[in-house]
Amino acid sequence: MAHNVADLPSGPLDFYRKKASFNWKDMLFFLEGEDIVAFKQHVLKTLEDDPLFARQPGEDVPIEKMRAMTFLRVKQLFRYDFLTRDEVMSNPWKTVILSDCLGMYDWAMSAKYFLNKGMFGATIANTGSARHSKYVADVEDMTTFGCFALTELSHGSNTRAMRTTATYDPKTQEFVINSPDFEAAKFWVGNLGKTATHAMVFAQLYTPDQACHGLHSFIVPVRDPKTLLALPGVLVGDMGKKLGQNGLDNGFALFHNVRVPRENLLNKTGDVAPDGRYLTPFKDPNKRFGESLGALSGGRISITRMALVNLKLALIVAIRFSATRRQFGPKDMEEIPVLEYQLQQWRLIPYLAAAYALEHFSKSIFMNFVEFQLGQMMRDKSGRQAEMGREIHAIGCSSKPLGSWTAQRGIQECREACGGHGYLAMNRLGDLRNDNDPNCTYEGDNNVLLQQTSNYLLSWLHAKHRDGVRIESPLHTVDFLEDSLHILGGKFTARTMEQCMDSAVPLAAYKWLVCFLLEESRRKLEEQRASGKDDFEARNSSQVYYCRSLAIAYIEHNCLQRFHDLTTDQDTPAGLRPVLSKLCALYGLWSLSSHTATLYQGGYLSGKKPTELVQMAILTLCSQLKEDAVSLVDVFAPSDFILNSPIGNTDGQLYKNLWATVMQGNQVLERPSWWKEFISDKPVVGSLRPKL
Amino acid sequence: MAHNVADLPSGPLDFYRKKASFNWKDMLFFLEGEDIVAFKQHVLKTLEDDPLFARQPGEDVPIEKMRAMTFLRVKQLFRYDFLTRDEVMSNPWKTVILSDCLGMYDWAMSAKYFLNKGMFGATIANTGSARHSKYVADVEDMTTFGCFALTELSHGSNTRAMRTTATYDPKTQEFVINSPDFEAAKFWVGNLGKTATHAMVFAQLYTPDQACHGLHSFIVPVRDPKTLLALPGVLVGDMGKKLGQNGLDNGFALFHNVRVPRENLLNKTGDVAPDGRYLTPFKDPNKRFGESLGALSGGRISITRMALVNLKLALIVAIRFSATRRQFGPKDMEEIPVLEYQLQQWRLIPYLAAAYALEHFSKSIFMNFVEFQLGQMMRDKSGRQAEMGREIHAIGCSSKPLGSWTAQRGIQECREACGGHGYLAMNRLGDLRNDNDPNCTYEGDNNVLLQQTSNYLLSWLHAKHRDGVRIESPLHTVDFLEDSLHILGGKFTARTMEQCMDSAVPLAAYKWLVCFLLEESRRKLEEQRASGKDDFEARNSSQVYYCRSLAIAYIEHNCLQRFHDLTTDQDTPAGLRPVLSKLCALYGLWSLSSHTATLYQGGYLSGKKPTELVQMAILTLCSQLKEDAVSLVDVFAPSDFILNSPIGNTDGQLYKNLWATVMQGNQVLERPSWWKEFISDKPVVGSLRPKL
Repeated sequence: MAHNVADLPSGPLDFYRKKASFNWKDMLFFLEGEDIVAFKQHVLKTLEDDPLFARQPGEDVPIEKMRAMTFLRVKQLFRYDFLTRDEVMSNPWKTVILSDCLGMYDWAMSAKYFLNKGMFGATIANTGSARHSKYVADVEDMTTFGCFALTELSHGSNTRAMRTTATYDPKTQEFVINSPDFEAAKFWVGNLGKTATHAMVFAQLYTPDQACHGLHSFIVPVRDPKTLLALPGVLVGDMGKKLGQNGLDNGFALFHNVRVPRENLLNKTGDVAPDGRYLTPFKDPNKRFGESLGALSGGRISITRMALVNLKLALIVAIRFSATRRQFGPKDMEEIPVLEYQLQQWRLIPYLAAAYALEHFSKSIFMNFVEFQLGQMMRDKSGRQAEMGREIHAIGCSSKPLGSWTAQRGIQECREACGGHGYLAMNRLGDLRNDNDPNCTYEGDNNVLLQQTSNYLLSWLHAKHRDGVRIESPLHTVDFLEDSLHILGGKFTARTMEQCMDSAVPLAAYKWLVCFLLEESRRKLEEQRASGKDDFEARNSSQVYYCRSLAIAYIEHNCLQRFHDLTTDQDTPAGLRPVLSKLCALYGLWSLSSHTATLYQGGYLSGKKPTELVQMAILTLCSQLKEDAVSLVDVFAPSDFILNSPIGNTDGQLYKNLWATVMQGNQVLERPSWWKEFISDKPVVGSLRPKL
Repeated sequence: MAHNVADLPSGPLDFYRKKASFNWKDMLFFLEGEDIVAFKQHVLKTLEDDPLFARQPGEDVPIEKMRAMTFLRVKQLFRYDFLTRDEVMSNPWKTVILSDCLGMYDWAMSAKYFLNKGMFGATIANTGSARHSKYVADVEDMTTFGCFALTELSHGSNTRAMRTTATYDPKTQEFVINSPDFEAAKFWVGNLGKTATHAMVFAQLYTPDQACHGLHSFIVPVRDPKTLLALPGVLVGDMGKKLGQNGLDNGFALFHNVRVPRENLLNKTGDVAPDGRYLTPFKDPNKRFGESLGALSGGRISITRMALVNLKLALIVAIRFSATRRQFGPKDMEEIPVLEYQLQQWRLIPYLAAAYALEHFSKSIFMNFVEFQLGQMMRDKSGRQAEMGREIHAIGCSSKPLGSWTAQRGIQECREACGGHGYLAMNRLGDLRNDNDPNCTYEGDNNVLLQQTSNYLLSWLHAKHRDGVRIESPLHTVDFLEDSLHILGGKFTARTMEQCMDSAVPLAAYKWLVCFLLEESRRKLEEQRASGKDDFEARNSSQVYYCRSLAIAYIEHNCLQRFHDLTTDQDTPAGLRPVLSKLCALYGLWSLSSHTATLYQGGYLSGKKPTELVQMAILTLCSQLKEDAVSLVDVFAPSDFILNSPIGNTDGQLYKNLWATVMQGNQVLERPSWWKEFISDKPVVGSLRPKL
């Protein structure tokens, strides 16, 4: 099958490509599989061949036009219908790959498409009932266009505090939707700015007895699908320019006595009878709330992946640039590629290792999520299924911070590592940074989410201490904590740099680290409570250096563990294992470095030697992997059209491509339209200077 | 005089303003002085009152228009002529304040103005001679417009490798300027894209005997000042969109046999006689080269300050937001400002401390630079003057990385700390990040520059070991190294958290750290050389963990030392000393935290206690300073018009201001111009799906 993947053009990158220790096509097929490689090629090629998707690197597109183009492209995606429902069911991973492909092209387009079909359509399917199926059908063929309206102007993280109301009127059997004031305007809603005809509005449900039953979701028409004009009572509009993803129209809506039929309540977790009685299968309103927001958990796992895609794109650009950009050298007239510099390697190659670690991690947690979802669909009410839900939640709440922050920092490093050329819009690093940025924020601020994960871990410790429960979870991410006492007695034992170059070394250190931070967080919390603080205060005062670090260490450990397992798996092809093992060791050691202080603090490390060994191992791995770096990015590089960054083209003709793109720009050589302003009305220096 | 500064409007920020431990106007006058406060107010008020400077937060302005507006505003700045040459001479600090003011409004405008008058005009004055004064005069009144053309498409950091040539033709007494190929096109030149009529071109000077005399600068006309059309032989144009500062037109130029008179050579450090003989006062061409690029040193010190201004603006926005944004609380219905959360304090307040440290630092190193420049103007040929040049160079090469990276990270943290609203363009955090970004790159990539600083420090150690020289520099930034042996014997001695809350504690630790890293870097370099590597290789392999860390620690120490001296100075008002001392201690401890591993590694720290004490001290200081945080940003906040960020307005009416700005946007409530695309030509799902 490998013959279906085109060879790479010969050029300045050959120097490194020839040095690679592995065959990049073998790696590609090992990581993706034939079916996915073919699917990916098909999607990307389709976009490239359709003039509607044509664009010019770095062009200055007004927002209005950007939104129009995005809409037209999304419309075309309906026509391409890359994935049918059956195909998704038979291989759910393809949804992720489709998102990868559309996102590599443009995240705003991808978001616009999936917010409608996925976030709106699928959430109706999951949280509504048979009576809502027409809404799903209408969305599927773009008869209507949907959006997901949860956050308000004054509330984001604190979802329960949303203030929009839905009051049931038994006389007409309708809900009356109201925004109490502009601070409760729905805000940040993707697709609502220009195109949405229907919104899934989260509102506090009131029954005629004045009882508030908490947040529920309602399908609320906001614009006439025949004219796109706002419906009476709905003040709906566009929020304006964002730092990135400007093809997506985020919007706001204020509701003034907007009436929707009783049936528009999405009623899986709670319903209102025609006479106004509230009905729910849940006794505990917290549980009901958790279920209705459950849709967000899969979102966080997807975001982990989206961030990774951005990191990969930035690395392709920065590594190809570094392999072809020459600057200085041992002799005056002989310059060497900047990738040959230790500093440049150390800046970029650990992020490349992180990308490989996250590649496997994001796939493997997605598979965990699919397993969980399958259980939900099968209405599995077992304890194991519930436990898996808690574990998946803890993973998603920390994998999103891990992915989005690694990408954020990695893209910034890539930007700087490309020097001035990295600052030129056409090379895309700015767009990648700007488009990646919201991954740190939406579906939960990273710092806030991490608390969910540390709470989960602490609850295990609590259950063990209180009830003698054995620590063992369905996905086994916490099992090692059972062995905590023994682990905490361990020390760093590697004695040579070569020993450190094995991922088992950082992996063992991470196990110690998680156990140590868990114990320290528990101690800190108890100390706070003992000093008279209530739970809210005690938790708030135990985040920095404790619970927050714990959650980060937990997910980094898990990511490393999964990658380590892959590299030691006998099914992993022998030709790829050496390079994967190096990447794994580098990722582990580099990632661990941010915790060195804690390792010393808790006595896992002592003296000068261990840090020196680890540092030497990191630099040695970087230096070895620099030979593989170009091929490692070739593995995940899309076509030049999709990458859309002249300094990152496959042929490595850095300057030719950059120069050609500059010269193809708009009015590059023309004098400015306002040239007369230079000539006429010359300023009289100081003529406006006031006499002080 | 304090009565000349308006009181702040009452509102939601009163809560914190009333809690402040100091009077913000006292702080303002202490830090700035009456004269500067008045000057600043005058400049900012002038911009605010002139409709030419009117703008709308977050508006989407096409690049062509952005460049036109910037040009018109720069033209107006000539008319305002805020600073005459005499005023600059009597108080050079005012140049920095003017740059602060223009930059707070828009860095692209500031750059366009100063690149012409400062970089072009002043460099001609400094490196040319009497025969060039007409060029300076023409620039001063905008008869012509200048730019500084050093970097080329394929060379940035390695300035000596520029390939543009200037060949002297004695027959016509002209230089013939040529670009050998497009890779040698001048690239990234500010003002060259659209407006420059003249460029200061750096080129390799060839005399008729074929001898190359290295890089020299030449005044080369590029556009006709009467038409703004390119002159024959010059291919000049615009590079296109950048990540930020798009009001500035960066450009490129290719020269094909462009002839300029012999007199256009800037001849301070080297000249060519009419018959073609090369004349120079320097025997060592390296020395000549160093002198001709000397202009860059002041630039780096200015950039340190520019980055600080960005950090301050971001902090004003994020801290006022955090003081008024409420989310969650001890009880369900009672939400508290997010600034009350430990995590939010820890994310933002150390950067606030850094801003105060850098405020004093950037001013104080500028004063050092002025002293140095004065010596240059007086033609001081003393050893002390030369030493000061080396020291200023070492400071500038590390202060720029310190300032620009602190700002880069701080702005990012502010962006994330403002959640989704931080992602809305109108709140300006994106522009601040984008406009700050090039500070990491231009006038030397941060990582490359740091090598200059570590080389300087190592040269002291070398001189001491070889010649028994006493380590003592004109600005005393290295004097403590003389005491290295004693310092390296020291340990962390604080035993309580209270003791740690004194900036003397991190200061002592920093002294140890610099001595340790200097010694380690020397050892590493010798080890590399002993293993047979040449100097180039040995230095490259000693950057990561050694030389690079050394340079960073050196400049952080110096920044902390200067701030520490200020807080302990008896002339610092007693009412301000407590808060300044806290800021200083926090800055020191927080900044030191990134080196904890090294402190353990070298045995300065041991056991669990010290890190715990430092962490507790950081959190306690954050918590104490949160009461002062709003007033601390009030001190450096410009008017709302200049800040241009609704969520950061002085009145603290977060949502009112945000909502009002959203509603004032362009076509907010209108249906999109392309609405018919939604209605007509509905997509047939899958109609373009190929039969696979």
